[in-house]
Amino acid sequence: MGKVYLIGAGPGDPELITLKGLKILQIADVILYDRLISKDLLNYARRDAEKIYVGKELGEANLQNWINKTLVEKAKEYNIVVRLKGGDPYVFGRGEEECYYVKSQGLECEVIPGISSAIAVPAYAGIPVTSRYFSSGFTVISGNRAEGKEIDEDYIPKKGTLVILMGLSNINKLQNILLKTRQKDTPVAIIQNGTLNSQKVYVTTLENLSLTVEKNNIKSPAIIVVGEVIKLRESLWKLS
Amino acid sequence: MGKVYLIGAGPGDPELITLKGLKILQIADVILYDRLISKDLLNYARRDAEKIYVGKELGEANLQNWINKTLVEKAKEYNIVVRLKGGDPYVFGRGEEECYYVKSQGLECEVIPGISSAIAVPAYAGIPVTSRYFSSGFTVISGNRAEGKEIDEDYIPKKGTLVILMGLSNINKLQNILLKTRQKDTPVAIIQNGTLNSQKVYVTTLENLSLTVEKNNIKSPAIIVVGEVIKLRESLWKLS
Repeated sequence: MGKVYLIGAGPGDPELITLKGLKILQIADVILYDRLISKDLLNYARRDAEKIYVGKELGEANLQNWINKTLVEKAKEYNIVVRLKGGDPYVFGRGEEECYYVKSQGLECEVIPGISSAIAVPAYAGIPVTSRYFSSGFTVISGNRAEGKEIDEDYIPKKGTLVILMGLSNINKLQNILLKTRQKDTPVAIIQNGTLNSQKVYVTTLENLSLTVEKNNIKSPAIIVVGEVIKLRESLWKLS
Repeated sequence: MGKVYLIGAGPGDPELITLKGLKILQIADVILYDRLISKDLLNYARRDAEKIYVGKELGEANLQNWINKTLVEKAKEYNIVVRLKGGDPYVFGRGEEECYYVKSQGLECEVIPGISSAIAVPAYAGIPVTSRYFSSGFTVISGNRAEGKEIDEDYIPKKGTLVILMGLSNINKLQNILLKTRQKDTPVAIIQNGTLNSQKVYVTTLENLSLTVEKNNIKSPAIIVVGEVIKLRESLWKLS
């Protein structure tokens, strides 16, 4: 019986994979990989490794079942089965569901963390999520809840950096929710294609958030950062 | 003139460094490293690289100034100066201060993200910080504010996973603050020496948090996780 490894590939830049993840990737028999995985990473795989694309769009519930079943089938046949996921497997990655399913079928599953885009995408845009003087904490939420559920305001604290993943499709709702507890002129950054050469950063304010997305026709993948730490971007970048 | 790289070494397991960080580490002329850095990582350095220990204890403000100045001095003399930091440089790592200082002195500074202990330490203990069914967001705070400041309750949302770094010295205060908005029986995990072979996990409830720390004489480094996702640990681990 083989073993399944859920490996976090990081936010985009292929060199942000961990050494531990890379070593397993290099010896894998089978690799199931996501839509946003860098093709450069697949070049590290064995030439005879089976590479299966499992890029899923929102709402395709059957696809998740198919991924779960394929992980198990392949692990029954081969020694090392890798599920290569964007970012970190346990940050909105459904990694816990995949690992649970694999274990429920009597097979081993190990999670190898990845660099989360929630932290690294702001960093590549010159924004630290915490700062001794501007924010002593940060919150990460998904702007796109499962099964059409509404965004729960109780997940958003009054203060501190807020990082919103997959927020574009709910941008108006998000703006209205945030304006209930934060000032209109709170700085906001929208980072498109974070960590890649095609990265674009838009800096605006909370009251102009949805307008900025619309005007610039910003498309996913994009991450939204809200908070005073965005001011550090100016000072960190002006000098470089 | 040389360049300064702030590299996140990850939470403990030396193989959690990124490929990008490792490549720079291998060619560095000078390496300034923290107390919690694995010695295995230093073995990747050139034999003739200058390795400077800068492990700091809380409150040593002069040490931070000394680190800043040393980074600049060394970068004026050598090509590649690495500041190897535990976890991620921008998650309570004062990376933004170091980078700002280096740039203010006319030198280049680049941040290479690391695996944050806030996400990976729970993962190694079998706890996903998010979950489709148990938590659609997570918050990371420091239990040890700069210059003796109090913990600001406005950084803590009513719902979602809460990860507290450096929380042991304020454990009673933290417990009281959290009990204002969360149920007494909310699951809490305390993870000591996360990701290392010496890792220990204590699972308790919010009302028994400080008692558990005291009874088991838990020492830092330790991370506290609060929330329903801890229940997933049972299911993920019982099967393995």
